[in-house]
Amino acid sequence: MEQNIFQLQFAMDTFYFLICGALVMWMAAGFSMLEAGLVRAKNTTEILTKNVALYAIACMMYLFIGYDIMYDGGVFLSGIETLAPEQVLADFSAREGGFNGAAIYSAAADFFFQVVFVATAMSIVSGAVAERMKLWAFLTFAVLLTGIIYPMEGSWTWGGDAVFGLYTLSELGFSDFAGSGIVHMAGAAAALAGVLLLGPRQGKYSADGRINAIPGSNLPLATLGTFILWMGWFGFNGGSVLKLGDISSSHSVAMVFLNTNAAAAAGAFSALIFAKIRFKKADLTMVLNGALAGLVVITAEPSTPTPLQATLFGALAGVVVVLSITYLDKLRIDDPVGAISVHGVVGLLGLLLVPLTNSSSTLIGQLIGAGTIFVWVFSSSFLVWFALKKLVGIRVSAEEEYEGVDKSDCGMEAYPEFTLG
Amino acid sequence: MEQNIFQLQFAMDTFYFLICGALVMWMAAGFSMLEAGLVRAKNTTEILTKNVALYAIACMMYLFIGYDIMYDGGVFLSGIETLAPEQVLADFSAREGGFNGAAIYSAAADFFFQVVFVATAMSIVSGAVAERMKLWAFLTFAVLLTGIIYPMEGSWTWGGDAVFGLYTLSELGFSDFAGSGIVHMAGAAAALAGVLLLGPRQGKYSADGRINAIPGSNLPLATLGTFILWMGWFGFNGGSVLKLGDISSSHSVAMVFLNTNAAAAAGAFSALIFAKIRFKKADLTMVLNGALAGLVVITAEPSTPTPLQATLFGALAGVVVVLSITYLDKLRIDDPVGAISVHGVVGLLGLLLVPLTNSSSTLIGQLIGAGTIFVWVFSSSFLVWFALKKLVGIRVSAEEEYEGVDKSDCGMEAYPEFTLG
Amino acid sequence: MEQNIFQLQFAMDTFYFLICGALVMWMAAGFSMLEAGLVRAKNTTEILTKNVALYAIACMMYLFIGYDIMYDGGVFLSGIETLAPEQVLADFSAREGGFNGAAIYSAAADFFFQVVFVATAMSIVSGAVAERMKLWAFLTFAVLLTGIIYPMEGSWTWGGDAVFGLYTLSELGFSDFAGSGIVHMAGAAAALAGVLLLGPRQGKYSADGRINAIPGSNLPLATLGTFILWMGWFGFNGGSVLKLGDISSSHSVAMVFLNTNAAAAAGAFSALIFAKIRFKKADLTMVLNGALAGLVVITAEPSTPTPLQATLFGALAGVVVVLSITYLDKLRIDDPVGAISVHGVVGLLGLLLVPLTNSSSTLIGQLIGAGTIFVWVFSSSFLVWFALKKLVGIRVSAEEEYEGVDKSDCGMEAYPEFTLG
Repeated sequence: MEQNIFQLQFAMDTFYFLICGALVMWMAAGFSMLEAGLVRAKNTTEILTKNVALYAIACMMYLFIGYDIMYDGGVFLSGIETLAPEQVLADFSAREGGFNGAAIYSAAADFFFQVVFVATAMSIVSGAVAERMKLWAFLTFAVLLTGIIYPMEGSWTWGGDAVFGLYTLSELGFSDFAGSGIVHMAGAAAALAGVLLLGPRQGKYSADGRINAIPGSNLPLATLGTFILWMGWFGFNGGSVLKLGDISSSHSVAMVFLNTNAAAAAGAFSALIFAKIRFKKADLTMVLNGALAGLVVITAEPSTPTPLQATLFGALAGVVVVLSITYLDKLRIDDPVGAISVHGVVGLLGLLLVPLTNSSSTLIGQLIGAGTIFVWVFSSSFLVWFALKKLVGIRVSAEEEYEGVDKSDCGMEAYPEFTLG
Repeated sequence: MEQNIFQLQFAMDTFYFLICGALVMWMAAGFSMLEAGLVRAKNTTEILTKNVALYAIACMMYLFIGYDIMYDGGVFLSGIETLAPEQVLADFSAREGGFNGAAIYSAAADFFFQVVFVATAMSIVSGAVAERMKLWAFLTFAVLLTGIIYPMEGSWTWGGDAVFGLYTLSELGFSDFAGSGIVHMAGAAAALAGVLLLGPRQGKYSADGRINAIPGSNLPLATLGTFILWMGWFGFNGGSVLKLGDISSSHSVAMVFLNTNAAAAAGAFSALIFAKIRFKKADLTMVLNGALAGLVVITAEPSTPTPLQATLFGALAGVVVVLSITYLDKLRIDDPVGAISVHGVVGLLGLLLVPLTNSSSTLIGQLIGAGTIFVWVFSSSFLVWFALKKLVGIRVSAEEEYEGVDKSDCGMEAYPEFTLG
Repeated sequence: MEQNIFQLQFAMDTFYFLICGALVMWMAAGFSMLEAGLVRAKNTTEILTKNVALYAIACMMYLFIGYDIMYDGGVFLSGIETLAPEQVLADFSAREGGFNGAAIYSAAADFFFQVVFVATAMSIVSGAVAERMKLWAFLTFAVLLTGIIYPMEGSWTWGGDAVFGLYTLSELGFSDFAGSGIVHMAGAAAALAGVLLLGPRQGKYSADGRINAIPGSNLPLATLGTFILWMGWFGFNGGSVLKLGDISSSHSVAMVFLNTNAAAAAGAFSALIFAKIRFKKADLTMVLNGALAGLVVITAEPSTPTPLQATLFGALAGVVVVLSITYLDKLRIDDPVGAISVHGVVGLLGLLLVPLTNSSSTLIGQLIGAGTIFVWVFSSSFLVWFALKKLVGIRVSAEEEYEGVDKSDCGMEAYPEFTLG
């Protein structure tokens, strides 16, 4: 009879992973809508194509080699491990901590949950390089980021391997619950490398030093995308508890849901107020970026803060993201959707806040971890982008950019009947 | 070993609340898309901003004071209660009804589920006052509705407190399963008070008595919003069973899903047929409102009707909502999205139908409950709107209204490139 | 105490069905957005109306008679069976296979899960006949397909009845896990019958033999619809395992999620590459159809393939769907959204691939099953469409088609303010 209790726990933990994974998969739709809403109409088909294709590539590359690199568990050749139920039950009986020990669940559910994370990291890149990067150069980069660059740093963090055999991050007090650094800052680092090599869009920065706003073409889509991401984030953070089926684990999952929501709400609100003070208007795109910043900042540790702390962290992130977006523009780093600020700057902030509520992490550990992730992802991405630039070029021609990449890359307009001004 | 069964039940009930809560949070996206689709293009950015901001405010205010008022459980100062697992297990062993007794689950999951309900109530308001209300007056109202007005009536209904110490609704036979009255009619009452003080949009009613249709600018968005609400409603009603983890509770949850879907389907269908008869056309906006009316009407009691009864209730709601929308227009009560009819009139209808299938409720109890909710929410909201009107004004200037509130409030168009006719 | 373990298993399996069912219901939104994005602006309100209405009709007809025909379980008259918990517990104790035996769960959850499948089958039809079919002829067809035609073939397949008392498909080695044939090919067969009687849209095929592209009006919507379908498909296939609550069942559910995602990813990717080779462009609509083809092909058997096999099947489907769409156009079979190719041709492919990984099915059984479904659904649908054509007409007038069906059928434009080119 005890074995049947184990069976239920196995089923419950497996189902929990699958539902959380489906929510994270849904974030791919969120990024697509957010980015499609924030670019100009003439570049919309291409950004949609990029988003669907990068998700597909991420799933395939992580299956082929990424999961194996990150967790030493090959899926491509050997398939998914299906232990006999008897063996699973024996594992249950033998595990440390008994019923409350580490979760035992289907390896297939674990792969499914992990694979959607890879896609999230890559989705961050597409927004930052939008409106001027060649489609096929981008997709080639996606193959390498999702197959090698991300899995390598993932192996040093969640995978537990020593960084090039030199030092082990967890031993230094590095902790990143659901990936403020491992997923979000990593994606932003790859994006930054690309943006630096790519340069700003035509007309973004005038010769006389003026910064010209290039408004997004469809704000309901951008808002929808933000809500989709917000919802999907419950799976992203909630699933990262890694176990549901006992009292304290399920309470942790609940705290994570609550804090994730609280931080996002506070981020949206503080960005609204701060942008109103600075720009005199209720700036919807800043509100959306504020909500996303709240989500990114809490991702490094959503289980230990009180709801009030989560609210304060989110509010801080909402201000920081507005400042960062403004500042990057001054540096002439052109990021059409604000991805580097939302995921990179705020991702780092999230890592640095962890020691305030989680005593098992240290500020020095967080700094070393953040540095390791950034240096690896930025430099390896820079190399790949640089090689692509030399070999095939990464930027469309000036004429193609003027006409919009939809025509040259996809041969298809996103809104062929709507007259554009 | 029995304790491990309790642990699984705790985890299951907690997870069920969280998933249902995430679905209700998703309704915020539904309201945003529905309203953005039904207003004119020039007021779209502002309605999106309102929707994101009100959700953020609702989450913050309910955390700060609302939950404490409603359930005497402070979260802001004391944080979320985390009983030791041993204590939880002792609670299980001691509870009345044994395994089938009242659910025991994480307090954090309860807060998360409750907080998204507050946001729903406030979302109802934004549609009714759309296209002419000042953004910051609206957000100030949101602070008071979500922090005080809604939690007060919530404390008398789901909270079980006596109304101003005078009478206790549950003892009078009042029953509102998931909130046809407590959430939906309450939101509509607050909206009605605002609309009466605000007046109709320019051009809606001609001096010669004609009623002019002001069509929504983006019907795919409105349809998407309706589907999102439909999906989210499974969480709204399904989670209101409050327990999943035994045979009869889970059967109730299943009946609620089935009936919620049946009522929505019947509402959409009957509104389609009835509008075709009256207006000679298949009126999509009426079909959408019919579906929502079916959802609202079944919300007062989705667990006791048979599927056939749920279908009939939904069909009735679909007719009533078409009649109500037409009638309110004759009264020159201008509600751009039909929120007062869908949530208010049909919410009341839902309350009155409960005694037909739930013998623990009485018609007199339903009337007193509905009256209590309406009088409190309408009059306190009226006072707040009135004070705002006197102090800062609630209506934008005629010129701002003509130009669209996107420009004056947000400084940003929703569709800057699309040429508008 | 053992009984409480059964109670938890009952609750878990019931909840699993409900969540999967909610995801399938969400597919109705996916079809709506996909089709609204792929038709011209002037036919958008009508396709949205059709999609909401057909979902409503499907839910009502399946409740009234469909479920009874398919599973000999009347719901309309007798309501949902609510066995006493004691009876349920006795059923548990008596079942073959003990704890690991066939699932026992709420009958209401079963109905809910089944009803959303019917709607999916009907959703497939609306896209193929878009832009020229009369609304009310379409809705009349929906009544008959969802009430009789689909439930009849469902009774022969999942219902286990002999086909007209002659032969039993399961005994011949027919296997269709989640409905590549039973749902998807069936929908496509009904669509094909309609399209043949309806003829192509004005201007699609020139007299001189040219095939003219009629681009979709809103590609972000079409992309959103595809992502919604992708997400909903986890429920569609995942729920079709029919049990969650033991080790091997939950592992199967996890494999189904993993393989469903892998096939969709591979389908999108292979269609991208194949379309690039053939058309020299990254054709977004082909990428979307490729993803959907991957989903359809794996639906016949998502539990037995390895992830690599699922990837290969999906990749094959992505190529087949591009070829099929091109070929049907050559045959002058005008299918605005590619539904016949995605769901029909690829649905058949899915059935034929099953014996490669599932030894309990045979190629001959798959062929007989596919033939039975196709012949029944195509011929009965053809008869219904034909009768409708003779009695009331199924095609709008040439002038209505030119003006767009939104005006004639719905009296309402989808984008009234956007100037159309």
